[in-house]
Amino acid sequence: SNAVRIAVLPGDGIGTEVTEATLAVLEPLAKRHGIGLATEVLPAGAFHYQATGDAFPEASFRAAEAADAILLGAMGWPGIRYADGTEIAPQLDLRFRLNLYAGVRPVRAIPGVPVALADPRARDIDLVILRESTEGLFFSRGRGLVTEEMAEETLRITRAVTEKLARFAFRMAERRARQRGRRGCVTLVDKANVFRAFAFMRSVFDGVAREFPGVAAAHHYVDAMALDLVRKPWAFDVLPTENMFGDILSDLGAGLVGGMGFSPSADIGDRHALFQPAHGTAPDIAGRGIANPTATLLSAAMMLDWLAARGAGQGFADAAGELEAAVDAAFAGGLRTADIGGRDGTAAVARAVAAKFGAS
Amino acid sequence: SNAVRIAVLPGDGIGTEVTEATLAVLEPLAKRHGIGLATEVLPAGAFHYQATGDAFPEASFRAAEAADAILLGAMGWPGIRYADGTEIAPQLDLRFRLNLYAGVRPVRAIPGVPVALADPRARDIDLVILRESTEGLFFSRGRGLVTEEMAEETLRITRAVTEKLARFAFRMAERRARQRGRRGCVTLVDKANVFRAFAFMRSVFDGVAREFPGVAAAHHYVDAMALDLVRKPWAFDVLPTENMFGDILSDLGAGLVGGMGFSPSADIGDRHALFQPAHGTAPDIAGRGIANPTATLLSAAMMLDWLAARGAGQGFADAAGELEAAVDAAFAGGLRTADIGGRDGTAAVARAVAAKFGAS
Ligand SMILES: CC(C)[C@H](C(=O)O)[C@@H](O)C(=O)O
Ligand SMILES: CC(C)[C@H](C(=O)O)[C@@H](O)C(=O)O
Repeated sequence: SNAVRIAVLPGDGIGTEVTEATLAVLEPLAKRHGIGLATEVLPAGAFHYQATGDAFPEASFRAAEAADAILLGAMGWPGIRYADGTEIAPQLDLRFRLNLYAGVRPVRAIPGVPVALADPRARDIDLVILRESTEGLFFSRGRGLVTEEMAEETLRITRAVTEKLARFAFRMAERRARQRGRRGCVTLVDKANVFRAFAFMRSVFDGVAREFPGVAAAHHYVDAMALDLVRKPWAFDVLPTENMFGDILSDLGAGLVGGMGFSPSADIGDRHALFQPAHGTAPDIAGRGIANPTATLLSAAMMLDWLAARGAGQGFADAAGELEAAVDAAFAGGLRTADIGGRDGTAAVARAVAAKFGAS
Repeated sequence: SNAVRIAVLPGDGIGTEVTEATLAVLEPLAKRHGIGLATEVLPAGAFHYQATGDAFPEASFRAAEAADAILLGAMGWPGIRYADGTEIAPQLDLRFRLNLYAGVRPVRAIPGVPVALADPRARDIDLVILRESTEGLFFSRGRGLVTEEMAEETLRITRAVTEKLARFAFRMAERRARQRGRRGCVTLVDKANVFRAFAFMRSVFDGVAREFPGVAAAHHYVDAMALDLVRKPWAFDVLPTENMFGDILSDLGAGLVGGMGFSPSADIGDRHALFQPAHGTAPDIAGRGIANPTATLLSAAMMLDWLAARGAGQGFADAAGELEAAVDAAFAGGLRTADIGGRDGTAAVARAVAAKFGAS
């Protein structure tokens, strides 16, 4: 068949719950748009590590690598860790092994979902943190030097990856200007006032900016950006940044628009792409059917959109648009999950969203 | 005389304006409390670099080192930079050269000053970001490796400094519980789930925590903390963290409670201490008399408090308390600076604050 192959890694805790809800929505959506989605569920994660000693079986990795796209729930669990004390995180392995350098983390106010800021302009928040996801401080993952008296990690920034990230950012800003009416502005977030590596990053970014005269380019120090994301997040569009900075700023951004339950993400490379909610496995609420699957649904919409851009066909683009619109309509219509003080559980969200596109 | 000696480094841009306003308030305050303050104004900063080729004359450094405390305005200027492109920042040199490891950055909602969050509990925000200020990623300042194709920086965490920082944090929490009725909780902010250096930092912190059984100790990942500082900042007390993380989180915190104009700071070592507003030189408004001096006034209150704790006498403690209370009373009474949409300029703030303790 010519179905698009999706590798599904539900993972641990609520990862499995939000994935199930999302697959339940994707099925009728795909039918409606006449698009073929062949899903294959693969084992990986902390409980798999506990059971087998292997957090990410090579067979799962190979299948994910061979698929057209990867949909991931969440992985990791308190008390189940690698020998060096760090977290079980096959999602990080995927970023590194598949060179998924562009960590796309949209921060968008969803109609009906409470925003954190008092200023009414907060309802207009629609920006993207573009977290470089393969180097920066995370280059050092598993490489840290520890002695009795001190420990060191290495932050690395390369020209090659910075150029790719910058091009990705400018193309995204062009597309957002066309499709969403954003003003087309890319702001590099760095700390070039103190570190040579960030002055280097900035100069590489500036070189790429000259290839895109139609898009405004700017710089912002990371500390000033943390301030401005609290003071005027509606003023920003696309924000490429170093891996660790992006990790921090994207969670800050999630906090502005309802929390991790509403924050989708994608990790995109030149050939592969991984889509997952920004949240973790939420041990405190796992197994109770109350996890908010919205971030995963929106991640799935990003996946369909990416597949469309890769040539899978207009049906994918239409399905992506309809899925995002259905999520918005469901919350605008009064849907309220537990994380925002409501009573609608995981399955209820899936039903409400599917109902919006006529699959009830 | 037995006056306490304050080295004053006004610096550049609004640094000079907020310093002048603060000295104008300190004078009558000192008189009222019968405390002797001998101030010596010292040259340093970007304009001094432009004029002389030296951003921080050795004579200024020696005088600052010999003083009982250092009060700094702000330093740096766009377009005036060191040869490697990084910022003119004698304040960083002071942190390193005087081993000012404890960067104390209070985040407190001041009565009358608008807070950013919609939740009414935001009025109860009263926490301290404790930014380690001599190592972490900033260990790498001036040491970064740059080639044609890549750049690297080194993040370093030592046992010795982490132990000191942790003890400082627990003592501060004890003191805040006693004096401000806070609940006494120290939360280390790290990224121990990914980096060995942070797992190391955490284990050193845990060791110190056992010396303080009366204070609750907790850990939080830096990304989760960025989220929680937006979602429930009122839940936190003392937050020690790595240098770069503290830089980011303290600006985030400033954004919650009115911005940089309301954010004081101190950099404290075993023998020396530096007090300065968290803001920069604000080239856009410099020279217009509209800069908000509140952060500097509150930094001066921290300085008096620190001098009292170092044995300068009860008059210093009283003066510190009165200065902070006068700032609160002035804003509660309707004072409004330009940064929060008002019309009260630098000198007007100084007058209003001084008037609150009867020096009009
Ligand atoms: C779980 C953790 C290792 C991961 C990261 O730091 O990248 C997470 O915080 C994220 O943002 O995807
Ligand atoms: C001006 C800059 C070098 C400085 C820093 O990064 O420490 C500032 O942001 C601060 O927070 O004091």
